[in-house]
Amino acid sequence: MKILIIGASGTIGSQIVKALATAHEVIKANHSSGDVQIDITNTASIHSVFESIGKVDAIVCAAGNIAFNAFSELSREEWDLGINSRLMGQVNLTQIGSKYLHDGGSITLTSGIIADYPIAYGASAATLNGAIEHFAKAVSVELPNNIRINVVSPTVVTESLDTYGDYFPGFNSINAEDLAKYYVRSVLGVETGQTFKAFAGN
Amino acid sequence: MKILIIGASGTIGSQIVKALATAHEVIKANHSSGDVQIDITNTASIHSVFESIGKVDAIVCAAGNIAFNAFSELSREEWDLGINSRLMGQVNLTQIGSKYLHDGGSITLTSGIIADYPIAYGASAATLNGAIEHFAKAVSVELPNNIRINVVSPTVVTESLDTYGDYFPGFNSINAEDLAKYYVRSVLGVETGQTFKAFAGN
Ligand SMILES: NC(=O)c1ccc[n+]([C@@H]2O[C@H](COP(=O)([O-])OP(=O)(O)OC[C@H]3O[C@@H](n4cnc5c(N)ncnc54)[C@H](OP(=O)(O)O)[C@@H]3O)[C@@H](O)[C@H]2O)c1
Ligand SMILES: NC(=O)c1ccc[n+]([C@@H]2O[C@H](COP(=O)([O-])OP(=O)(O)OC[C@H]3O[C@@H](n4cnc5c(N)ncnc54)[C@H](OP(=O)(O)O)[C@@H]3O)[C@@H](O)[C@H]2O)c1
Repeated sequence: MKILIIGASGTIGSQIVKALATAHEVIKANHSSGDVQIDITNTASIHSVFESIGKVDAIVCAAGNIAFNAFSELSREEWDLGINSRLMGQVNLTQIGSKYLHDGGSITLTSGIIADYPIAYGASAATLNGAIEHFAKAVSVELPNNIRINVVSPTVVTESLDTYGDYFPGFNSINAEDLAKYYVRSVLGVETGQTFKAFAGN
Repeated sequence: MKILIIGASGTIGSQIVKALATAHEVIKANHSSGDVQIDITNTASIHSVFESIGKVDAIVCAAGNIAFNAFSELSREEWDLGINSRLMGQVNLTQIGSKYLHDGGSITLTSGIIADYPIAYGASAATLNGAIEHFAKAVSVELPNNIRINVVSPTVVTESLDTYGDYFPGFNSINAEDLAKYYVRSVLGVETGQTFKAFAGN
């Protein structure tokens, strides 16, 4: 399989690359490095990446930014960061990318546990993670050519605890290597319209 | 109680008014008629309504537009219609309105069954209805002064079948009068962070 991985240099993306690169042709896409550069907030950038790499069998997105702030303080500019990246970045990647997928190809997007469990400063993340999960479920019945789409919702990643751990008091974390298996399941499996919640039930 | 009902002239809103107006002081707000005029897509309009009516005990929103189109055809302008109205219209109403609620007051927003069950042309509605449900759950733990927030998710309304019925083949509808009870439960009850799904399980 020819697999485009966006966010390939990241904590999560680098483990997805590791899990897939031995058996598959992986194209690493980051914002400012990698085999190709991409900005998912910019539809022209998404178009130009696919024009240059051609058709693929799978698209994985482990990128997408959101603002964190108290709800009473969240400005429209902060909301728009997540709307343009986490939400519309992944929506546009799906709309454009689905035209460059071979029959039976797949799209795997990323949300996060904040969709289900509130944390301080997480109102925008909860909203837009939830949005992308509902999006994938809805478009799964519309995508042509047996293209599948799923979302992976990670809890906080163990390797990210130094940075984000204080926002997730008492939450169980997951190793990026274990987390990568959910992306592999989405790419190589048969499921569609699902959110794989990479955390225990509650 | 002093209750602001937005979308009061609508199919749904008019039944919410009917259910609450005998025992409570209801302020009817519509886009272009009513006791006050409001445009939820415009924060200045929201501010000016609250400046003119002062503090209230409950805010109910039975308004919010979304574009319907095939996913492959949905333009960013169409996405923005729902982002600015269904999503950020209700988010801004919550952020601004929470400052004009008495202690223990409540906010009740509207999503829709498309969040859970796909219909043709419904990808944007599914996404943004889902977003607003996750939003309410997340902000319910942040709102000050014991303010509660819930969402009502209606299936297609019986009185709207002439207009929308063809998009909901085989779906059960609900009378606007029966639907209004879920809004009453949110306004007069004790629950918070919930989505009241006004439809049978599946
Ligand atoms: N880490 C966690 O605990 C955790 C938990 C739940 C969800 N998530 C989500 O999972 C995703 C990846 O997380 P991570 O911790 O692996 O992030 P990370 O280590 O910060 O890596 C982010 C990756 O995304 C790329 N990127 C940044 N902006 C981009 C853009 N506009 N367009 C395309 N690519 C862009 C970066 O490229 P450059 O290196 O070139 O900038 C990098 O490859 C994020 O959306 C994050 O919110 C993370
Ligand atoms: N009817 C259904 O089957 C159904 C099912 C699920 C969800 N919903 C949702 O429930 C809500 C109400 O539905 P409905 O059928 O009662 O709608 P409706 O009959 O079309 O009434 C819409 C109401 O919203 C007001 N409005 C329109 N744009 C507004 C804006 N920018 N700011 C503030 N108010 C505005 C209208 O005021 P004016 O009269 O002055 O224009 C009117 O009072 C909508 O969000 C709809 O998507 C409806």
